[in-house]
Amino acid sequence: MPDHLLLRAAFRQPVERTPVWMMRQAGRYLPEYRAVRAKADFLTMCKTPELAAEVSLQPLDLIGVDAVIFFSDILTMLEPMGLELVFEKGGGPRFPEPINGPEDIERLHVVDPADGLGFVGDALALCRKQIDGRVPLLGFSGAPFTLATYAIEGCTGKGFNKVKHWYYREPKTLATLLEKLARQVTSYLNYQIASGAQAVQLFDTWAGTLSREDYRTIAAPFTRQVIDRLNRDGVPVIIYINGGDHLVDEMAQLGADVLSLDWRTDIGAVKQRHGQTHALQGNLDPCALYGTEERIRLEVQRILDAAGPTGHIFNLGHGIHPDVPPENARAMVRAVQELSRRS
Amino acid sequence: MPDHLLLRAAFRQPVERTPVWMMRQAGRYLPEYRAVRAKADFLTMCKTPELAAEVSLQPLDLIGVDAVIFFSDILTMLEPMGLELVFEKGGGPRFPEPINGPEDIERLHVVDPADGLGFVGDALALCRKQIDGRVPLLGFSGAPFTLATYAIEGCTGKGFNKVKHWYYREPKTLATLLEKLARQVTSYLNYQIASGAQAVQLFDTWAGTLSREDYRTIAAPFTRQVIDRLNRDGVPVIIYINGGDHLVDEMAQLGADVLSLDWRTDIGAVKQRHGQTHALQGNLDPCALYGTEERIRLEVQRILDAAGPTGHIFNLGHGIHPDVPPENARAMVRAVQELSRRS
Repeated sequence: MPDHLLLRAAFRQPVERTPVWMMRQAGRYLPEYRAVRAKADFLTMCKTPELAAEVSLQPLDLIGVDAVIFFSDILTMLEPMGLELVFEKGGGPRFPEPINGPEDIERLHVVDPADGLGFVGDALALCRKQIDGRVPLLGFSGAPFTLATYAIEGCTGKGFNKVKHWYYREPKTLATLLEKLARQVTSYLNYQIASGAQAVQLFDTWAGTLSREDYRTIAAPFTRQVIDRLNRDGVPVIIYINGGDHLVDEMAQLGADVLSLDWRTDIGAVKQRHGQTHALQGNLDPCALYGTEERIRLEVQRILDAAGPTGHIFNLGHGIHPDVPPENARAMVRAVQELSRRS
Repeated sequence: MPDHLLLRAAFRQPVERTPVWMMRQAGRYLPEYRAVRAKADFLTMCKTPELAAEVSLQPLDLIGVDAVIFFSDILTMLEPMGLELVFEKGGGPRFPEPINGPEDIERLHVVDPADGLGFVGDALALCRKQIDGRVPLLGFSGAPFTLATYAIEGCTGKGFNKVKHWYYREPKTLATLLEKLARQVTSYLNYQIASGAQAVQLFDTWAGTLSREDYRTIAAPFTRQVIDRLNRDGVPVIIYINGGDHLVDEMAQLGADVLSLDWRTDIGAVKQRHGQTHALQGNLDPCALYGTEERIRLEVQRILDAAGPTGHIFNLGHGIHPDVPPENARAMVRAVQELSRRS
């Protein structure tokens, strides 16, 4: 039986209080992160286990979270498959040569993560060592649909017209890509688990752009394929979709242990529908951290009341914003830890 | 009793077939639109009634839609209030001096639309004349929350952190801005109705970023205030939210006649919940127009089956994409008009 609060909550076992962590908690809102980032570019940080471990552990010491998620980006795993990845100064990640057709899919190779992604295993091992049992270590990967979106669009935030063009015009070609990505994600996550990850989160960040029927057709089968093949003995699987309120009932069909909800979903209603089979993670609006401490505590209390004392991992509904004062993140974490305590 | 298909559908009266139009139907996907646009910039087109009327009527003749919506932008109404508006080449609209605090709200003035926005009344009158009774003419406005988002963020597509910062930090200041915008939207829409608009649509495009509770607190009261004060004798009111699946039950409390749904909402489920009190508009994924004619017809049929024969205005779930071939838009309109026909 797992000992850590977060692992017990993920398996809906009794806890003394609700565990809490934040998506993107190792990030730019921390001056200590920016100090490391000033010395190395983003990909160098991902690929240097000492730097990755350093920033991964910062929120544990500085903010007091109940889990460490190793520092990386969901796109790094596409590079050894054959997609050159560029992080441009001031911008997001970009693939200069995105997937344009079947021949580009052909040239993508499913690789052994120990080759090409060995820095991830090293970072995880180093994190585990430095955490020294205080909290669990989380691994993560993009889900196949979200990875395909980046691989086809070439960058993020520009809409999803190309990937949907494929879906409506060449659904079989898109499925070929997704199937390949599903195999890579599976081996990548199993490699993370073998390297020390004690829970894994699948980010299907952009699946919220799909209707329920389209999600069921093009995204869910490949996510389910990944989850089915994970070596998950004692390792809970968390699934996250941004803007996925209309997909929650589909998320509950994937075989995951934990449904991670964005702030637009009524966590109490999901608890009623799926609380018997799933733990829930979330779901404070990341912008609530702009509020006063008093306002933050009110919002935390509201979510704790709705989610109940068991089967809940407190988190933001999306990544923490870079302009949030660290003090406000601390206030949120403190509020969860105090207000959820069962005496 | 109104005669036009769309007006009858909006009031849930019997129709021979389902009416259809498309958000952003007067737009860049049409070569004939681009020909006009090549001669005048966007704001000049908005402000020149002859040009605005010309492009407004293009989809009536070229695509065969069942309604004309006058050509404009939701942001033009903020200019006479005191916010300078710039359309940059290749980019979207931008306010060089966005609202930064209470003193900026102070300097915004609610104006008589006949001053400052007279070109809108002229464009509507000219559209009515040229349509000559063939189809109804739609007016529109942004809803207060969405307008506030633009006014505070300064531009679109960059997230909603500033407006939410206000919400969590200075909710009363934000409410002051929204109340002023609500008064301006009310007089603007009543001016459009007086100028010939036979139905009006409120675009609360960005309200989908709010949780249900936050929508209820900060957006809904001001939209309701607008709707309550419209001179709507025989003029149906349509409310649209992008990404608003989680807000549909709140939309149904606003007093509108028609709920316009994006493609992620199950229109059949909304029909069951709200079909006795509201007509529904939507909700094809705009990307479905990338599909083959056969695929488009399948998707149209699926929505017609779910929405039923009365109380439905067919539309896209969001604006038509600029790279859709006009032939595909025609195929969609034709499919609706053929497949929904009651003999």
